[in-house]
Amino acid sequence: MSDVLHRLAALLPADRLLTGPAQLAAYESDGLTAYRTRPLAVAIPETTDEVVALVRFCHQEKLPFVVRGSGTSLSGGSLPVADGIVIALNRLTRILRLDPAQRIAVVEPGVVNTQVSVAAAAHRLHYAPDPSSALICTIGGNVAFNSGGAHCLKYGMTANHILGLKAVLPTGEVVEWGGASREHIGPDWCGLFNGSEGLFGIALEITLQLLPRAECFYTVLAGYRTLEQAGDAVSAVVASGLLPGALEIMDALALEAATAAVHAEYPPGAEAVLIVELEGTREAVAADRGRLEAIIAGSQPIEMRPARDAEERLAIWKGRKSAFSAVGRLSPDFIVQDGVVPRRRLGEALRHNGELARAAGLRVANVFHAGDGNLHPLILFDGREAGALERAEALAGRILKRCVEMGGSITGEHGVGVEKLEYLPAMYNADELDCMMRLRAAFDPLGIANPGKKFPRAGAPALSQRGLHPLERAGVISRE
Amino acid sequence: MSDVLHRLAALLPADRLLTGPAQLAAYESDGLTAYRTRPLAVAIPETTDEVVALVRFCHQEKLPFVVRGSGTSLSGGSLPVADGIVIALNRLTRILRLDPAQRIAVVEPGVVNTQVSVAAAAHRLHYAPDPSSALICTIGGNVAFNSGGAHCLKYGMTANHILGLKAVLPTGEVVEWGGASREHIGPDWCGLFNGSEGLFGIALEITLQLLPRAECFYTVLAGYRTLEQAGDAVSAVVASGLLPGALEIMDALALEAATAAVHAEYPPGAEAVLIVELEGTREAVAADRGRLEAIIAGSQPIEMRPARDAEERLAIWKGRKSAFSAVGRLSPDFIVQDGVVPRRRLGEALRHNGELARAAGLRVANVFHAGDGNLHPLILFDGREAGALERAEALAGRILKRCVEMGGSITGEHGVGVEKLEYLPAMYNADELDCMMRLRAAFDPLGIANPGKKFPRAGAPALSQRGLHPLERAGVISRE
Repeated sequence: MSDVLHRLAALLPADRLLTGPAQLAAYESDGLTAYRTRPLAVAIPETTDEVVALVRFCHQEKLPFVVRGSGTSLSGGSLPVADGIVIALNRLTRILRLDPAQRIAVVEPGVVNTQVSVAAAAHRLHYAPDPSSALICTIGGNVAFNSGGAHCLKYGMTANHILGLKAVLPTGEVVEWGGASREHIGPDWCGLFNGSEGLFGIALEITLQLLPRAECFYTVLAGYRTLEQAGDAVSAVVASGLLPGALEIMDALALEAATAAVHAEYPPGAEAVLIVELEGTREAVAADRGRLEAIIAGSQPIEMRPARDAEERLAIWKGRKSAFSAVGRLSPDFIVQDGVVPRRRLGEALRHNGELARAAGLRVANVFHAGDGNLHPLILFDGREAGALERAEALAGRILKRCVEMGGSITGEHGVGVEKLEYLPAMYNADELDCMMRLRAAFDPLGIANPGKKFPRAGAPALSQRGLHPLERAGVISRE
Repeated sequence: MSDVLHRLAALLPADRLLTGPAQLAAYESDGLTAYRTRPLAVAIPETTDEVVALVRFCHQEKLPFVVRGSGTSLSGGSLPVADGIVIALNRLTRILRLDPAQRIAVVEPGVVNTQVSVAAAAHRLHYAPDPSSALICTIGGNVAFNSGGAHCLKYGMTANHILGLKAVLPTGEVVEWGGASREHIGPDWCGLFNGSEGLFGIALEITLQLLPRAECFYTVLAGYRTLEQAGDAVSAVVASGLLPGALEIMDALALEAATAAVHAEYPPGAEAVLIVELEGTREAVAADRGRLEAIIAGSQPIEMRPARDAEERLAIWKGRKSAFSAVGRLSPDFIVQDGVVPRRRLGEALRHNGELARAAGLRVANVFHAGDGNLHPLILFDGREAGALERAEALAGRILKRCVEMGGSITGEHGVGVEKLEYLPAMYNADELDCMMRLRAAFDPLGIANPGKKFPRAGAPALSQRGLHPLERAGVISRE
């Protein structure tokens, strides 16, 4: 054990400081499974005081650290660094306060997303942001990546639901931003942590806004002959002024995957399925339902299937939420992408992506938050074939660059992580990147918090030739 | 004319660079009328390129600048500095784009708040944040102070409606954050500008979210014998799960002022009035209306008056929105305060404030966004009496400190400006202030953008004895 680990060992009991290769193996990778790095050690604090002590130790020793919740990041945001430690927050799972009158919950960062709504259910409240991984991902990770979900269209991203934050900065300083109310002293320091991908510090206590649970849902699934028709139906719904809770599309390949995985049944002959969910009071849903049905009926669906009860509603969502992992049944490997286009250009983007996929000779499944213009192409490949990963990544790159050209973004909710480092210059000019680096230095002058993620490490140029990832060339990460 | 002004004169035609004492007089003060400072000059750009050129000039010359829209800041945010220039944005009033399909507007910073909704009305859309000064204040100022308004309860603050921002930093760099969609690369760089009070740069183009106009409103005014009863009614409405568009309270003195100013008529004997407005589709409002009426009926009002038509609704809002300036009819001078308390402690806060006012021998009118816990005590005094301003400011200070002790904030929507500099340490610890100063330096290493606002200038201690304002002692500002 190195000197620094010996000194670190003084901070935690031996069973909460993992250093053995077998123990570390479980922490080498996250949701971006193609990348893998072994850290020096994994520290498992049980209190926020221990988290603060660990960060102060890292600051004093100039020791890099990477924070990990459930390790579900799809951009490699919790990929360890070889010269640093992992701080695993899974034991910080306390809901510290739940105040139904104020409609807030104060939670530790390791609390699992759905657990908040479970705890709030007794008061007919819930926590709105619902990433597909809600059953496993943690609130700390949701904050770090400003997670979205199917219901963002109506309720906004994680950032829209975080009222306050107590955090330890990479300098070891402890700060508290925001509070129980939306109205506080600006700017939005708290929003600066949302989506900071672990670079600005570690959340210790997070104040969440809770919303009244909808009294009533109306969920309808419609099958279409073409993806474009489904896209046009989305435009028609949005243009009507209706604000559904969710507005999702799955394409033919995604439908095939969901059918294989959870035995979902879709309208025969459907090349695309649209899912629309209205929610609110019984009266409001009843009123909107008629308008929605008229719009869908006018969009030439093969079939329109309203969920007749709670069970049918859950079945619709089970198919949708399973689609990501279900694609694994169609292909030994796949890349989940996450691009954004202006929603009025959705049809155009889907057509372009189809052309790019055909040109690359690769299958691409599409599951996406249509109402937000947030696309999730799943690019299928067989990693055993020489050059297949590279071809798939090159296609992902072309799809993302097209999103930027159309006025969108290279990520909607998965973050930059290590995966998209090289696309940053496609989004930001030199002045913007400079300003970001200065802000980062204001939080973390030593650059020890999640180094090599989001921004290139040590000022290395981010844009590279395809093939070897910049972090691979720098020896920071290695592939399986 | 000094050397620096001679060089500045090369950037603008003579009629858009004001240097004469009579011309400067109009810019010496803003909504915080007790403070007054004469700047070196006022520059009036007509294009965003001119704004960028002015900032680059200031950066090169180390010349402080203060940006001004309509000068309605209630915290002295646009008060000039004596050794710097004012950049007045009133001619940057173009709505650059209005896209009803995408539901966005892209505007220049000098566009007046209500003009956005006027332009969007043809598409049945509107811009939701509605400060009381909406008829005159500018979107740039709304962003700089993260303005609120009566409808924040349902729709959130300005920050919740700003999707993207192009800005020139105090370094002269031009950056663009965010975009047409909510889903973008985190953190919320754009939110960092919201409420930055002109310290981080000047917005050049602002992308606003537009929302469908409510189909239908139901506005009800209820009179109560005591302020506490009105406060309890607010708690009951919030606890019911209803989400009104607005939930406002006016106390006896505010009612007296509104009656004098706009001949508003309130229920005889009412010591407090509650205004609740439901909005949404016809069906949703019809459904909620019954529930709301039952709750109000159960809260022992003297009288409940639903607006019977659009005219009666406007009359209710005219009385409410006039209350601030109307208080000027009751007293030669007054201070508008802006504190926040957790909304479940509203009744307690009102009782405390009443006690503090009686102890100080001063009259205080209360008009406030009850649903948000955002109080606006108006402290009446006669500036001609020796020591009266100081007594009023001391009372304002005691009210704000009480807000902080109750878990609230020293400002909900007016900002820190020069007015609340000395209260910052009541809200933030040394680590937090340190971190803020580092972030500020990342944006503005020379400290030339709105110096002396929000954070004490040149690291001077913010907390002072009452009486002479720290900026007065430093000679930065002088009082009338």
